[in-house]
Amino acid sequence: MNKDNYSKRLMSNMEINTHNHLVIDGVDTIDLVDKYGTPLNVYDISLIKEKINTFKEAFKNYENKTQVAYASKAFSSLALYEILAKEDVSLDVVSGGELFLAIQAGFPKERIHFHGNNKSYDELNTAIQENIGCIVIDNFYEIDMVEELTNKHHQVMDVLIRVAPGVEAHTHEYITTGQADSKFGFDLASGQVEKAIAKIKSADNINSIGLHAHIGSQIFEVDGYQVVIEKLLAKAKEWKKTFGFNLDVLNVGGGFGIRYTEADTPLPLDDYAEAIMNAVRKQAKLNELALPEIWIEPGRSIVGEAGTSLYTVGSQKNIPAIRKYVSVDGGMADNIRPALYQAEYTGVLANRVNENSEEKVSIAGKACESGDMLIWDITLPQPTQKDVLAIFSTGAYGYSMASNYNRLPRPAVVFVEKGKDFLAIKRETVQDFLKLENSIENW
Amino acid sequence: MNKDNYSKRLMSNMEINTHNHLVIDGVDTIDLVDKYGTPLNVYDISLIKEKINTFKEAFKNYENKTQVAYASKAFSSLALYEILAKEDVSLDVVSGGELFLAIQAGFPKERIHFHGNNKSYDELNTAIQENIGCIVIDNFYEIDMVEELTNKHHQVMDVLIRVAPGVEAHTHEYITTGQADSKFGFDLASGQVEKAIAKIKSADNINSIGLHAHIGSQIFEVDGYQVVIEKLLAKAKEWKKTFGFNLDVLNVGGGFGIRYTEADTPLPLDDYAEAIMNAVRKQAKLNELALPEIWIEPGRSIVGEAGTSLYTVGSQKNIPAIRKYVSVDGGMADNIRPALYQAEYTGVLANRVNENSEEKVSIAGKACESGDMLIWDITLPQPTQKDVLAIFSTGAYGYSMASNYNRLPRPAVVFVEKGKDFLAIKRETVQDFLKLENSIENW
Repeated sequence: MNKDNYSKRLMSNMEINTHNHLVIDGVDTIDLVDKYGTPLNVYDISLIKEKINTFKEAFKNYENKTQVAYASKAFSSLALYEILAKEDVSLDVVSGGELFLAIQAGFPKERIHFHGNNKSYDELNTAIQENIGCIVIDNFYEIDMVEELTNKHHQVMDVLIRVAPGVEAHTHEYITTGQADSKFGFDLASGQVEKAIAKIKSADNINSIGLHAHIGSQIFEVDGYQVVIEKLLAKAKEWKKTFGFNLDVLNVGGGFGIRYTEADTPLPLDDYAEAIMNAVRKQAKLNELALPEIWIEPGRSIVGEAGTSLYTVGSQKNIPAIRKYVSVDGGMADNIRPALYQAEYTGVLANRVNENSEEKVSIAGKACESGDMLIWDITLPQPTQKDVLAIFSTGAYGYSMASNYNRLPRPAVVFVEKGKDFLAIKRETVQDFLKLENSIENW
Repeated sequence: MNKDNYSKRLMSNMEINTHNHLVIDGVDTIDLVDKYGTPLNVYDISLIKEKINTFKEAFKNYENKTQVAYASKAFSSLALYEILAKEDVSLDVVSGGELFLAIQAGFPKERIHFHGNNKSYDELNTAIQENIGCIVIDNFYEIDMVEELTNKHHQVMDVLIRVAPGVEAHTHEYITTGQADSKFGFDLASGQVEKAIAKIKSADNINSIGLHAHIGSQIFEVDGYQVVIEKLLAKAKEWKKTFGFNLDVLNVGGGFGIRYTEADTPLPLDDYAEAIMNAVRKQAKLNELALPEIWIEPGRSIVGEAGTSLYTVGSQKNIPAIRKYVSVDGGMADNIRPALYQAEYTGVLANRVNENSEEKVSIAGKACESGDMLIWDITLPQPTQKDVLAIFSTGAYGYSMASNYNRLPRPAVVFVEKGKDFLAIKRETVQDFLKLENSIENW
């Protein structure tokens, strides 16, 4: 391969320095490896801010308010929440754990939204006691609990009604949530949303502010959003008449696609925003509704491309006429997406990015399991032991899904911004494993 | 469903008491839920000991030594290692983390074997310093490191040579490891094993004691073991002549199938042992070799059926003519096998096992992801909130692969034995999440 071709794989904010090292937002990744070891997850904070800003800028010419809520299940950390608290951005949490961490980080509670198909009584109790911004209410059992808790605490809670709209974006089976056969939300087709509206209306302290629908993940087109907006605003007109229902807020969820490999050609983020605004304007006019606020919930599209995984190359195995395996010191324990979703990634050798050489190899993880493969077939300058492999776009659903499978400690997480680095999450150690363990001497 | 039909799902050592509660090894699971909460992983220690004993008994009439090594990647804990230390059983570890925990538990080092396709220098250094029983050597890079470290520490290390035998058992793609296109071991077909033998022979302090091959997981037939034994003993005859190679030990790995649902009909464990012994006897005679020691490495077959997951039922969603979703308070964060391997499970309502009623439902996990489903289509007495769902055979690759996805704390793990219970692994809390987190105040 002509050496410059490796450069084409780089994500924005990446460059190659005079040592032929990969540089992320001004920080030499090999310096990071020397300082923190591998496996290491690096987040480009400038890029995260840029992605958020792209959405916000695009929404500036909308005639009503908008909210960009970061879907933190993609990646959460105390430090990230602290950084986001200073940005003009809202936050989606999906559990008491995420809510706890956000509160610890001092994230403004009124900008926190709570999601989930099976929120517990305790989680809802905390959310209501902390008086967070909004609960995205998912099912009838949850309405009962929220009613009981808001009455108990004499507190009004804003809710969005999560709708299963029967709209399916074209995407991977596991990350599709908008179709009718979904564990999430009130089923539109069978009239469950109407029942939910009526039930919420009858509750003293629950204040419906609008509707929520999420149609899928890693979506590369705008059609799905347009269809769901068309469907929901037509319904909103109907419910306005029958229930006096006000669509103050329309939350269309997230799902905006990102670039994992050169084969991915996602839309610019502002294209999604434009399409959503235009569809809302059109459908609001058509249905004689006031323009609702638009809320979106990007997760992957905020942090996905900003994350890079650094691994050290270890053993190799060349099977003649079949394949050359190159093993690294991480794998499915820190990034389960290749095994779980057959996700594809690309990357470079971070310590010698561009060379006039190539070899086709497959990148094996360290776990004692055949399925632990990170990349099938990638061309790289011939890797040798101690080389550093950078895998791109691992920022979403990488660390957040990390396990201790094979009793592998979780990687450290480093933030970089304009030439500076910061250890956001410490590397787990084997000693940490003892914290939860009891000895049978106590049996 | 006739009420007794639910009984047919029960695993051995389970019964139903007069309260219609599920009882595991003498312990009422509802008492466990009251004491420890949910989600809760329960291990039946009597059953674990029984499974080990079945293998050991079966091997008693073999004419040479045998070793049953528990493959701890299936599930490890300090307490389990302590219990196994008192049984006459060896231990497979696949990382420095598992090795550390085993040593902490006082597991006899000489009975520990170390596996993995990419053992690090540090891990090998520890293994050699601690003088563990044996390293299952996987690749040439590892031979170099073991040679360097054994010389450095003036210590002889026994090794088994891991062979990729080109034998594939019929099983799921992800858990097949015996075929030629494998990241594990020296490729038999292309002569890598011979090169490895020669390289090991030339090392002063590495002592080859035999061969290792592993042909897959969740295997329901004995043919694969017979084929690999035939292949390896024929080679051993050849290598005896050419290299003076002695096959003192033949390790045929694990992969013995277990029962997840009523549809699974695994062989009795002693059938696998019988088939392996008979094949070794036959092939040793045919190839004029002394009978080697037989070592096996069961993991799933020791702990899989002994593990039960207890969940509390929460929200429900009935989509007319499509499906009824019943959500529980755990899911892919504590058991990723349904999402990762399309694994199927069964279970019962632990607080009312047998009733003359049935309803077909699907069990949804708590994670904010459509793919988080634990069971598609199971008949149960109509579940209601606060019911306890017991899912069976979750003991292998359940807790061991658990993550904090969605910032869900990992479940507690309780051991039960003859009516007594013991908290082996404490429930993780959201406060535990802070241990690794840094605040940007320190940036």
